[in-house]
Amino acid sequence: MSESSCIFCQIIDGAIPADIYYQDDDILAFRDIHPVAPTHLLIIPKKHIATANDFSDEDERLIGKLMTTASKLARELRVDRSGYRMVMNCNRDAGQTVFHVHLHLLAGRAFSWPPG
Amino acid sequence: MSESSCIFCQIIDGAIPADIYYQDDDILAFRDIHPVAPTHLLIIPKKHIATANDFSDEDERLIGKLMTTASKLARELRVDRSGYRMVMNCNRDAGQTVFHVHLHLLAGRAFSWPPG
Repeated sequence: MSESSCIFCQIIDGAIPADIYYQDDDILAFRDIHPVAPTHLLIIPKKHIATANDFSDEDERLIGKLMTTASKLARELRVDRSGYRMVMNCNRDAGQTVFHVHLHLLAGRAFSWPPG
Repeated sequence: MSESSCIFCQIIDGAIPADIYYQDDDILAFRDIHPVAPTHLLIIPKKHIATANDFSDEDERLIGKLMTTASKLARELRVDRSGYRMVMNCNRDAGQTVFHVHLHLLAGRAFSWPPG
């Protein structure tokens, strides 16, 4: 499941440190090292999936869990009422830089529109 | 499941017209009436869920299907290689305006960072 050249797989394996906020059997959530909001977590599947183009139907529940987990963490962080933005980037036009899918959970300030 | 006062439920029911791009038993995808990118689809569950705060564990597969469907539509629209951004807003800080959860699929141009 893990890819030795993938920095997020190395975080999952503990080979690279990260400010981990939450984990379970399927998912890891840690703070973005370049936060763009007071709350900025990355929520990733422990299974290596490079981009959203690589989703398979069998990943549906796992991908959904990224979002349901984001909403639970937002509640824990007490930003659920004020609000939060969830963002996933795929490939160059969206600025994806790490090729292991990750959901950005952004909160703690107002976010403008369009989203980039 | 449908809420009579919800504009997206009315689109699902056919009471309000929309430029529908895709639908199946669970999901509807239609063009945003205020597009902010050459490709701008809204992908929504047919089940009324007001905000991401209202996700339940039983919705995991359905919520995942919003994203896996987005990636399939991106492929159909031939923006999968160039890239796309997926965004879901919850409540005021994120600018959520319609209280029926919707995933924005944005493509066809480069997106800056931060995402709003």
